[in-house]
Amino acid sequence: MPTPDFTLYHAPMTRSIRVRWTLEEMGLPYRLETVKFTRGDVGGAEYRQINPMQKIPAFRDGDRVLLESLAIVQYLVTKYGPTDLAVKPDEPGYGAWLEWLHFGEATMSMSVNLILAHTTLLPEEQRNPGLAKWARHEVDKHLNMIAERGLKGHDYLAADRFTAADISVVYMLYLLKLVKQFNGAPEPVRAYFDRVAAREAWRKASAD
Amino acid sequence: MPTPDFTLYHAPMTRSIRVRWTLEEMGLPYRLETVKFTRGDVGGAEYRQINPMQKIPAFRDGDRVLLESLAIVQYLVTKYGPTDLAVKPDEPGYGAWLEWLHFGEATMSMSVNLILAHTTLLPEEQRNPGLAKWARHEVDKHLNMIAERGLKGHDYLAADRFTAADISVVYMLYLLKLVKQFNGAPEPVRAYFDRVAAREAWRKASAD
Repeated sequence: MPTPDFTLYHAPMTRSIRVRWTLEEMGLPYRLETVKFTRGDVGGAEYRQINPMQKIPAFRDGDRVLLESLAIVQYLVTKYGPTDLAVKPDEPGYGAWLEWLHFGEATMSMSVNLILAHTTLLPEEQRNPGLAKWARHEVDKHLNMIAERGLKGHDYLAADRFTAADISVVYMLYLLKLVKQFNGAPEPVRAYFDRVAAREAWRKASAD
Repeated sequence: MPTPDFTLYHAPMTRSIRVRWTLEEMGLPYRLETVKFTRGDVGGAEYRQINPMQKIPAFRDGDRVLLESLAIVQYLVTKYGPTDLAVKPDEPGYGAWLEWLHFGEATMSMSVNLILAHTTLLPEEQRNPGLAKWARHEVDKHLNMIAERGLKGHDYLAADRFTAADISVVYMLYLLKLVKQFNGAPEPVRAYFDRVAAREAWRKASAD
């Protein structure tokens, strides 16, 4: 395989962490392009050419631009492996792997985004406490799912090893932690976070 | 391959349509279990055993239960093919396929869910017009992405054929259509919806 030509468009604390974490776990070389996180115009006109929605991350593989953090993670582990981060269709954990990989956005993102916005990001007078409360209630259900369905008898969410499914979900736990909404999580979920956050690649990916 | 033992837990208009559509496209046999959509207690105690979050769909493959509509779709097309609905890692459209597959939830679901809730599903006195307006603005950006990044010069979102990526995104367009928020979509997106909705499998999957 020729050396890959990867560029990751990154900003601290954003979903680019998932991609950077994956790259670090796999030991793949990449250029890091830090995007200026200006509210209302992330990255300016230049970045708008790369991602018209001006969301982070974007990823460049040669002359192809790829969006969606989980799509990029899945792309890397299934195309640039072999790696234990991917679970293969003939492994018994394949269904669980896909389920938790999607869970990190499809199920969790709306509530986590609302919590972020309505406890921290929006100016105080624009926050809606009712919405934050609803979202908190949803997130409690998600954390229970992670504890009961994901981690009961297991250290990781799928295939009894650290995989891309953990990268998907742990990023959401990290966001909750950032806005001080993680302390009340079930004990197995807190222990899981600590276990995963001890990884060298996580530390590198979340350092800035 | 032995005959698969599939059960789809379904309710009209929900994300189970994506899974049913996939099964119909692939010609796979399945049992349809219609779940009673009671607000606040979807499917009752029995369904809570299958999906503690009481969301639809759930899917059973033998004795394994799988959640997350897009995970189930991806599971079926990559494990029970070969099928043209899957794009393989060595095809040039692989990145785009993953991107749009995730886009249908990761990017679109929050805004589409808010539009549904705050224009239609919630009792009128609980609706927040400001939130609906914000969500509508977001959805306009998504529809432009679909037109410009997805469909410019193409009939389908990835690999120049109908794939699971279309199943992901078209379901969201269908939801917008249900609540009369699709008429203003860019012409290529409306034509795309009509093209895809002409498929026999879509008609079967969305009939009830």
